[in-house]
Amino acid sequence: MGEQDVLKQTGKQTSTGDISPVERLHVLIAADMAATDRMIHARMTSGVALIPDLARHLIDSGGKRLRPMLTLAAARAGGYRGDHHVRLAAAVEFIHTATLLHDDVVDESALRRGKVSANLMWGNKPSVLVGDFLFSRAFQLMVETGDMAVLDILAGASAIIAEGEVMQLKSSNTLSVTEDHYFKVVSAKTAALFAAAAHSGALLSGGNDGYVSGMRDYGENLGIAFQLVDDALDYSGRQALLGKAVGDDFREAKMTLPIILAHARARPEDKPFWTRVIETGNQTESDLDRAITLVEQTGSIQETMRRARAYADAAKAALAVMPDSDIKRALGDIADFCVERAY
Amino acid sequence: MGEQDVLKQTGKQTSTGDISPVERLHVLIAADMAATDRMIHARMTSGVALIPDLARHLIDSGGKRLRPMLTLAAARAGGYRGDHHVRLAAAVEFIHTATLLHDDVVDESALRRGKVSANLMWGNKPSVLVGDFLFSRAFQLMVETGDMAVLDILAGASAIIAEGEVMQLKSSNTLSVTEDHYFKVVSAKTAALFAAAAHSGALLSGGNDGYVSGMRDYGENLGIAFQLVDDALDYSGRQALLGKAVGDDFREAKMTLPIILAHARARPEDKPFWTRVIETGNQTESDLDRAITLVEQTGSIQETMRRARAYADAAKAALAVMPDSDIKRALGDIADFCVERAY
Repeated sequence: MGEQDVLKQTGKQTSTGDISPVERLHVLIAADMAATDRMIHARMTSGVALIPDLARHLIDSGGKRLRPMLTLAAARAGGYRGDHHVRLAAAVEFIHTATLLHDDVVDESALRRGKVSANLMWGNKPSVLVGDFLFSRAFQLMVETGDMAVLDILAGASAIIAEGEVMQLKSSNTLSVTEDHYFKVVSAKTAALFAAAAHSGALLSGGNDGYVSGMRDYGENLGIAFQLVDDALDYSGRQALLGKAVGDDFREAKMTLPIILAHARARPEDKPFWTRVIETGNQTESDLDRAITLVEQTGSIQETMRRARAYADAAKAALAVMPDSDIKRALGDIADFCVERAY
Repeated sequence: MGEQDVLKQTGKQTSTGDISPVERLHVLIAADMAATDRMIHARMTSGVALIPDLARHLIDSGGKRLRPMLTLAAARAGGYRGDHHVRLAAAVEFIHTATLLHDDVVDESALRRGKVSANLMWGNKPSVLVGDFLFSRAFQLMVETGDMAVLDILAGASAIIAEGEVMQLKSSNTLSVTEDHYFKVVSAKTAALFAAAAHSGALLSGGNDGYVSGMRDYGENLGIAFQLVDDALDYSGRQALLGKAVGDDFREAKMTLPIILAHARARPEDKPFWTRVIETGNQTESDLDRAITLVEQTGSIQETMRRARAYADAAKAALAVMPDSDIKRALGDIADFCVERAY
């Protein structure tokens, strides 16, 4: 499950009835977001009808477009007055969508954003190829910005994302996976695109080095916080309250931080349970409940959330490079919201 | 089967004992080819060991690197004196390799260049992701050339290749596929990269517009000729003599030109055969022999080769933009060789 599912699900309202900070940022850059949406739809077209049909399945499924939002916000808050940031934001969303399509092949995941995944509907073949098409379109859009530095950032991020996804393959069914390995995977597969989205927008704006690296740091830390919270929510009653499936990671025997911690902290008599459900992948109906109980008993969710909080705080601290503005306040609140949505 | 299999298989010698023109061109630009090989190996590395392990499976399997050869030749014959053409050539080979890796997922092909395909050995997941990694590396290499125009060409070609592959999905199990559809697929999935390889090298050289568009035309026509010959060879005794598998396309019920023609020209009593083996995909052991007989009886191989000859001639004609040189003669002979290898 991606963070956008959660954002979508919680809707525009927080538990206190306020508009969420993601929605607030959307309103602040509404014209740019609308232009990005038009750009996305204009450039996902193809004479080969299956391509937009399949792409639309993900692109119009109600995601909040958080990554392109970071690009637009970083460009505007950096004083950018042109319109190339819209192409860059569309490129970022295309790279994200291509990654999801290829990740569906990878994980054989049945659900993505609450809809039947594209690769279940159309098969692996079209999902891979439409991902390739969107990835190519992303580079065409970046070429149109005429800015070699943003191309460099996003080409580099794309290579790192692929490395992270390959690293993650080793993270299933292997109890010996370390925290260090886990954080390397998260930095690569999730945080690299958050970082590149904000970084490239800041760079396009012509902001100074401090601003540019600050925005990159904001994106990177926000991305790690988001992934940690997602991984915690997969074992959380909060998730179940929201009507979302719980236990996707568990069923795939993924070594996310809650499991790494729960296994490390497990009583001797619980170790064989983890060996069976993770190493052998031999799971029965009631195992998820027991896993959730053990994860909670060992304080592993709290510890995962404590780490997420630290990354969210680092993201907010990175915003010090930005002059005070409504955009800055919204970005800071998004970092808080990312963690608070779990409670 | 790719054209490089055939080149590899026929070795350095033609049937008359001469060195093949592909080999001759390789010798003419030997230093550039060696530098490209070093660049390829230097840039396919990753801290994630599975990536170079899997990539090496294709990259070191003895392909002749015909596409990067076109890039280097077009750059050098256009008077280029720098060294960015080596990065560009490596990028072209990475895009080609990524396409093969994703095509293996697509076609569930068991053999590629005579070796067990990467996706059979490692699974679909790593093949898709390593393809993504190489594709990203290709764009990083292009960024390093600092030439936005070559980025534009190769990003555009990559989108067209993906479109061609998606179009090709509709080309199986469907007797109503037209020649027009077939040629659109071939232009997109095969010729687009040949064209872009030569085009981008010419552009990098700073050649005039005539030279640049001539080299693009050479690549495009050569690519179509190559694909036509490959599709003919799949039903050919010549292929069997070379010890290669025949009938891969047939078993996948692919509507290549030999089948499109054989079906269009079929006697009424042979139509039900084609309906069964292509539309329903219900094939028995002896069907390939019957298909080969029918393809030959209807003159469909000859007609396919006649078309290939015309594209090879168009490729040679496009070379008129190039001043006389050993490289020009080798490129012309490669166009002839591409067709003659089938006899």
